[in-house]
Amino acid sequence: MSEVELKADERVDDLQLNGLKIIQNPNGFCFGIDAVLLSHFAEVKKGADVVDLGTGTGIIPLLIAGKTEAAHITAFEIQPEVAEMASRSVALNSLENRVTILNEDLKKASILMGKSSVDVVTSNPPYVATTGGIKNSEDKKAISRHEVKCTLEDVIRVAAEMLKPGGSFYMVHRPMRLADAIYYMRQYKLEPKLIRFVQPTVDKKPNIMLIKGVRGGNPELKFMDPLIVYDADGQYTQEIFEIYNSAGIDVFDKREGSDEQ
Amino acid sequence: MSEVELKADERVDDLQLNGLKIIQNPNGFCFGIDAVLLSHFAEVKKGADVVDLGTGTGIIPLLIAGKTEAAHITAFEIQPEVAEMASRSVALNSLENRVTILNEDLKKASILMGKSSVDVVTSNPPYVATTGGIKNSEDKKAISRHEVKCTLEDVIRVAAEMLKPGGSFYMVHRPMRLADAIYYMRQYKLEPKLIRFVQPTVDKKPNIMLIKGVRGGNPELKFMDPLIVYDADGQYTQEIFEIYNSAGIDVFDKREGSDEQ
Repeated sequence: MSEVELKADERVDDLQLNGLKIIQNPNGFCFGIDAVLLSHFAEVKKGADVVDLGTGTGIIPLLIAGKTEAAHITAFEIQPEVAEMASRSVALNSLENRVTILNEDLKKASILMGKSSVDVVTSNPPYVATTGGIKNSEDKKAISRHEVKCTLEDVIRVAAEMLKPGGSFYMVHRPMRLADAIYYMRQYKLEPKLIRFVQPTVDKKPNIMLIKGVRGGNPELKFMDPLIVYDADGQYTQEIFEIYNSAGIDVFDKREGSDEQ
Repeated sequence: MSEVELKADERVDDLQLNGLKIIQNPNGFCFGIDAVLLSHFAEVKKGADVVDLGTGTGIIPLLIAGKTEAAHITAFEIQPEVAEMASRSVALNSLENRVTILNEDLKKASILMGKSSVDVVTSNPPYVATTGGIKNSEDKKAISRHEVKCTLEDVIRVAAEMLKPGGSFYMVHRPMRLADAIYYMRQYKLEPKLIRFVQPTVDKKPNIMLIKGVRGGNPELKFMDPLIVYDADGQYTQEIFEIYNSAGIDVFDKREGSDEQ
């Protein structure tokens, strides 16, 4: 384990997966359930070249590096301080040979990576479509939550451009953006193939969606059984425990409101 | 109640809603849960002009006539014998002044009705995309189940053409066609606004989807809580009972395998 410097307000959390640790800043950048669910949803084969678009703390490349035999994961993060923090997490885990954090605009990803060059693209993009209401376009939380620096169409277009034919795109998003996701995925030939909705409880509408597209795939959309987060007693369900355990994360560390990116 | 002639194998079922009855043929054309759920999902205001595309037995126009104050419901059915049976159900209920069954190809509906002329379009279309595997293109069950005579794109295009701006499209379909439905709806400016998934049980993936689009609507897709058909004991849930009761249909008459259209 390398030693790296921590900045004010930062802390190191143990992911309890192959000794992995991550630097987070409770004032702005902690990973949330979305990233954990996406890392579990994405299927990454041995030797795969993976790209993560809008990586934030770097949780997705770290979990994929820890759980799979991916050859290399390249992660794009437009915000300098955030990309720098993610890079220190990579160094902390001595993963520089498998994970690269690029402080670049994800809209340049297909140019930097090369067209039709990547096996898997993951993304946990900003959820909120921007309608001009963001006052401070450099606000960190706004950038990770709102489409200030990139739109959903940008993410899908860039993913489609850099994926090899038959390569897979895995995204976590909000169900309210389902129509946009499907429309742009089909438009850019990333055929929607698999959807899993995540519901807070068995009787409530979904509040998270996981979607897989395949570049140049035939139209054949399948659904997985819904993923339920809380049981009738308000406790995490067995499946949520298992997903967090497989990610190495102590589920009791998850607090409401920690889903900041 | 008018008297009408019954043909071989036909029977009259009492819908127990305002005295409504329907003619069905257990060998081929009985309505199923899809039509009942769609009639419940569709919001039809007083005085509305409604069109049902691919009406089969005519269950959807009959239920809408019985449950709402729609001014008129025009229903398209391409198969002569089926359209004729539906017309006799209309006559049986003396609803000729509110319900018209047209034995016409639904692809002509926007020409026959006029563009931008209708408030609500409903459809329970053939579910299965045809890949050339249908041997007998005049087979009645095949026509109602497979896209022999019309595609999902046809249904959506025609609905968009005849709806007034702000008019609503309500469709029941299979979740596996969600990507097609959303893509074509957006392409033809029928913005997806509301989805309800129907699951056999709380822990199983959806097997029916209800979707609403609004002609020229803004992108803002909402989800309803999932509709669960069976409880843990294998009995219909309270909500399914209530939907059938509000349709006037004795839920105990519903048998597995009766979902023929």
